[in-house]
Amino acid sequence: MGKHSSGLAGPASAPEDTAARSGAKKVAGWDVPPVESLRAPRGFDLAAFDRASTPGWSQGRKQAERLLDAHADELSDLQERLFAEGRSGGNRSVLLVLQGMDTSGKGGIVRHVIGLVDPQGVQHTSFGVPTAEEREHDYLWRIRRALPDPGYLGVFDRSHYEDVLVVRVDELVPPEVWEARYDEINAFEQELVASGTTIVKVALFVSLDEQKARLRERLERPEKHWKYNPGDIDARKKWPAYQEAYQAVIDRTNTEVAPWHVVPADSKWFSRLAVSELVLDALRRLDLGWPPADFDVATELRRLESA
Amino acid sequence: MGKHSSGLAGPASAPEDTAARSGAKKVAGWDVPPVESLRAPRGFDLAAFDRASTPGWSQGRKQAERLLDAHADELSDLQERLFAEGRSGGNRSVLLVLQGMDTSGKGGIVRHVIGLVDPQGVQHTSFGVPTAEEREHDYLWRIRRALPDPGYLGVFDRSHYEDVLVVRVDELVPPEVWEARYDEINAFEQELVASGTTIVKVALFVSLDEQKARLRERLERPEKHWKYNPGDIDARKKWPAYQEAYQAVIDRTNTEVAPWHVVPADSKWFSRLAVSELVLDALRRLDLGWPPADFDVATELRRLESA
Repeated sequence: MGKHSSGLAGPASAPEDTAARSGAKKVAGWDVPPVESLRAPRGFDLAAFDRASTPGWSQGRKQAERLLDAHADELSDLQERLFAEGRSGGNRSVLLVLQGMDTSGKGGIVRHVIGLVDPQGVQHTSFGVPTAEEREHDYLWRIRRALPDPGYLGVFDRSHYEDVLVVRVDELVPPEVWEARYDEINAFEQELVASGTTIVKVALFVSLDEQKARLRERLERPEKHWKYNPGDIDARKKWPAYQEAYQAVIDRTNTEVAPWHVVPADSKWFSRLAVSELVLDALRRLDLGWPPADFDVATELRRLESA
Repeated sequence: MGKHSSGLAGPASAPEDTAARSGAKKVAGWDVPPVESLRAPRGFDLAAFDRASTPGWSQGRKQAERLLDAHADELSDLQERLFAEGRSGGNRSVLLVLQGMDTSGKGGIVRHVIGLVDPQGVQHTSFGVPTAEEREHDYLWRIRRALPDPGYLGVFDRSHYEDVLVVRVDELVPPEVWEARYDEINAFEQELVASGTTIVKVALFVSLDEQKARLRERLERPEKHWKYNPGDIDARKKWPAYQEAYQAVIDRTNTEVAPWHVVPADSKWFSRLAVSELVLDALRRLDLGWPPADFDVATELRRLESA
């Protein structure tokens, strides 16, 4: 773990008192620990949120990319410990929930951050328009089925939050139905946390201009056409309604047990580094050891030598 | 794709005629294309198989590791094309089936080879002792449920072949039941291939000595204890019966549509490179392009500019 105090430390003027006040430890490279700088504060105002900013980080892109690379070994090591624990009777897991408008970079985060760990330990689910079977059930049914097993790092690309986002914006259910869901979701997440799952909720916010540039790129490059969907423009036209729905999500589901992190997404290098830090922090806080042997080592060594 | 003809080309004496005879193309770094050198030949004799050999490869470990690294970009690119095709209505997929005794390196292959591609495009399943629910069904039931969706790279860590391996060795069903399964498996795989799945079957063969060394390492290193299972020694004691069962698998399920590749597994660096080549070859043979737009690009560009 020596890399945490390596040459990537922040400037001397880093406001360590912020970290001290909140109880979060100084994190190499960051002026303010990312769990602090990215956590949605009480009274978070999405309309005023700068989507090109890099909260807590004053260095540039190269340093961010280097730091993300440097996280690979520790991420891998902690994920393996979590997996080992799950295989040895432990019940803990980590669930990364990624929310964000089209082009906010959810897929890139999975590829570049989650791609750093052993795919055997990852359970990834992408939630699209519900299937006929899914529509026959409660909205949390498909979510429950996709929850990470003990020892796994679960990743949700979109999630149950779609049921208070697109569902609210497009009025797919009556207001009293989606209105009730915020509390239902909080209760659901509390239950999840109580059963051993650490939930890392990340809302990625891209600006209207940057989204336009990214959609244009999908249209101008034939190898990106498959990522483009004319419906993306329809959602874009409802931008204010979506922002309002996201504001409500943060206002009403930013709980102590499952807080929201709000990540500016105009710089992909920043949002990727940011999410890697949030996942790392969640894994570190589990204080993962290696499971003790549930067999007698000396006996097994003897058995092995004569086998 | 320039890397395929890069500085890693084999010695001048490479038997290109072998490749020419079989129709397989020369592969950079290899004396004989790995799809040729690793494909189980007619009359394959497992007892005579050298598990420390590196068929088709005369260079060393460093070169192999460098070549595996160099495959990352192409593997990623082809996997994304496959995924894009699947998202655009295509029905093709690739399924890597990994079989091998304990410590033969299946997990390391998933981590180091499959870990090179986007986890969003991978569907990985590890098949252990069947659960109560699985035992209520036919042995292929759990296999069918885990088959890759269109566009995905499926990975089976163990597979339906366990139902003619451990099941045969431990006499978990009467002989006439497992006897019938070879033909059933061939029919099943033929059906799979006909429905668009390319099956890459890999049997990893580790030597008795190397297995002992690897099990000893698991016992001597506390961070590896979780990987050790006293049952591993029991299976080791039945080594000849397992070898016989593996020989029968190769003899009876080495079909044209889903041939076996036999990979010596005493050198992890070799088996990892070997499997990367086999997966790459399968992807290359799909001749994957990028799906054409199913919308009018000019119209969408106009819609975007005014949205």
